[in-house]
Amino acid sequence: MTTAIDYPALLARHVATSPRRMTPELFPYDFAVGNPPPEALPLQELIEATARALDREGRDLAQYLAAEGYLGLRQVIADKMARHERVTVTPEQIIVGNGSLQLIAMLIDCFIDPGDTVIVEAFTYVGTLRLLRRARARLVGIPVDEEGMRTDCLAETLHALQQQGIRPKFIYTLTNFHNPLGVDLSAARKRQLLQLATTYGVPIIEDDVYGDLRMEGDTPPSMLAMDTAGSVVWLGTFSKILAAGVRLGWAVVPPALFPYLIDHKLDSATNTFASLVVAEYLRGRLDERVQEVVAVYRSKRDALLAALERHFAGRATWTRPKGGMFLWLTLADGTDTEAALEQARRAGVNYYPGVAFSAMGDSGRNSLRLAYGYPPLSAIEEGVARLAEVLATPSH
Amino acid sequence: MTTAIDYPALLARHVATSPRRMTPELFPYDFAVGNPPPEALPLQELIEATARALDREGRDLAQYLAAEGYLGLRQVIADKMARHERVTVTPEQIIVGNGSLQLIAMLIDCFIDPGDTVIVEAFTYVGTLRLLRRARARLVGIPVDEEGMRTDCLAETLHALQQQGIRPKFIYTLTNFHNPLGVDLSAARKRQLLQLATTYGVPIIEDDVYGDLRMEGDTPPSMLAMDTAGSVVWLGTFSKILAAGVRLGWAVVPPALFPYLIDHKLDSATNTFASLVVAEYLRGRLDERVQEVVAVYRSKRDALLAALERHFAGRATWTRPKGGMFLWLTLADGTDTEAALEQARRAGVNYYPGVAFSAMGDSGRNSLRLAYGYPPLSAIEEGVARLAEVLATPSH
Repeated sequence: MTTAIDYPALLARHVATSPRRMTPELFPYDFAVGNPPPEALPLQELIEATARALDREGRDLAQYLAAEGYLGLRQVIADKMARHERVTVTPEQIIVGNGSLQLIAMLIDCFIDPGDTVIVEAFTYVGTLRLLRRARARLVGIPVDEEGMRTDCLAETLHALQQQGIRPKFIYTLTNFHNPLGVDLSAARKRQLLQLATTYGVPIIEDDVYGDLRMEGDTPPSMLAMDTAGSVVWLGTFSKILAAGVRLGWAVVPPALFPYLIDHKLDSATNTFASLVVAEYLRGRLDERVQEVVAVYRSKRDALLAALERHFAGRATWTRPKGGMFLWLTLADGTDTEAALEQARRAGVNYYPGVAFSAMGDSGRNSLRLAYGYPPLSAIEEGVARLAEVLATPSH
Repeated sequence: MTTAIDYPALLARHVATSPRRMTPELFPYDFAVGNPPPEALPLQELIEATARALDREGRDLAQYLAAEGYLGLRQVIADKMARHERVTVTPEQIIVGNGSLQLIAMLIDCFIDPGDTVIVEAFTYVGTLRLLRRARARLVGIPVDEEGMRTDCLAETLHALQQQGIRPKFIYTLTNFHNPLGVDLSAARKRQLLQLATTYGVPIIEDDVYGDLRMEGDTPPSMLAMDTAGSVVWLGTFSKILAAGVRLGWAVVPPALFPYLIDHKLDSATNTFASLVVAEYLRGRLDERVQEVVAVYRSKRDALLAALERHFAGRATWTRPKGGMFLWLTLADGTDTEAALEQARRAGVNYYPGVAFSAMGDSGRNSLRLAYGYPPLSAIEEGVARLAEVLATPSH
């Protein structure tokens, strides 16, 4: 006679307190998902790149590569970093991951014991939030204004923590086209943030996964480019300019951290097949690809801003992102965007309620994030009209 | 003025005690790497499958899929499990990972707190060993003979542990064509092992990543097929029949464990691009592919066995695997295969010394593992001749 296995009794202690995953589900008017525009996928070019890459280097697919990943892709990334960020990095400083999310998970695994303090923006990326909460980090959220993280508040926080004998493990910040707020960290703030970080001996994780999607203005220098103390881990991705499904993100890692971080890449190298193909596709045409896809994002952003003007003027405020794929809509006090979500979904409209991004609890209840990469251009006006109708209902 | 970041002072506590990674490096006569035969890669077919898959489903690449991975590939896997293992599993029980290694890492993360006990074979897969040591599991290695793990010893161990109030978190076993030993777990032993596991309430991780590579005899039923209590997590891979670089392994997970384990897939879905292509390539021709590649492995195994007969008869004993890609060579007492490795590499020959696989310390010093998937057929005789010369040198 057999006994059924009592799995809950066997699990590691952290399992009971882990936040559960979210299952993606698409709606007809989907302003929730951070997907790139499916109509702009270069499918034929990827097919052709597959043929060229496999003809030339396909036999490498037999190998288990080193955990850093395929050298050819790391060379493409180093070249991109040199041209776009004006930093000299070698492929040996780059780790390729299954999206930037894997690198965030590795960084958290590498730095965080339960109870450790981490500094984030008061509203920040839900993927990072979930992983930090899972690791039982103590989150300190810094207010954000139209210039990004408020470095005056950061200075006060770092000082206060130091008085308590607490050194934060790192500062995680989304620099360009903030998720979810749609604002940029200004050049002056970047300099102040870097100065504070190095003064207090706290590394910065500069998450710039949207930086390629600039529609207006010039790209200000990254903190990575300003850094002379090895303080900055830089995160990038091909998910937004190419496809989420190629699952290729990367970290540029200071040499003093690299040997520790690479030991947290537990699953060996990230997909060699996708890496070969994406490197072949992007080699020599990365900038052209960025221009193509930014044009699509821009048309969707403009359509969304126009629709908001029509349907929300006088009822709400919203950020006007200079790039990226997100904006932040703030409604009248007392509105509950989380409570309204079910009704919105019944109307075919999806979004992320503001509280989902709140690092320190329950802020942002009258705000929501609109992502404009995925929905068809032709659906944006109707989606916003439906959203306005849902949010006009007195029950929220 | 800036302060350089003191990374070692900031890292999580487990980092200091983690075993370091191994960097793969290829040698002219490489019997170390567990790579599949590069000359048997179906590159043209993968190119054609890419075109078909992207033409039909390429727009899905814009999406972030659920953590389980691409449904089409999970359907191919469920179909394979039904035909090869005679088990009915639905795609909802399957998680696709970046190789089976990621699933092993997830299982360890899900089950193990420092000090927890895990049962393994006395010699076992180095990837699992490294991750278990990193998690500070207490390893109990069970002796192995020509029928696989000795279930009489397992019974004694489980009883003794129970007397001490210790319930092991799981039993990890490599069933077909054991890595590194090249033996099979017999059908009788499988029944006994499953009975013991269910009696003691301990789940089994049945790692069958080599099971497709059968050259002789019939495949005995898996423990997964015998299991009626949800005791078995089954691991498979496409790395050995297709390419390590497609990085696609999977777990079949009992429903009672599934919601916990999927929460440990921290990096979102495994590569969609590779999943689309591999599913398209394998759909309807998986068995044909297995036959093709097994013929290549068989010719290499036979060449290796013949070369060992010529160069090691009377000096060593070795296992004669009925499939898979590994055999275990045992030399005279006093031989130190770890000490000999540097000299072997200077002669262009690479292998894994036996101690690398030892769960409980320093066993296997006069043994080594020979992997025969990767080296060219034409290199096997010369490689074994060189190995024999190195190991004949009195310094070892």
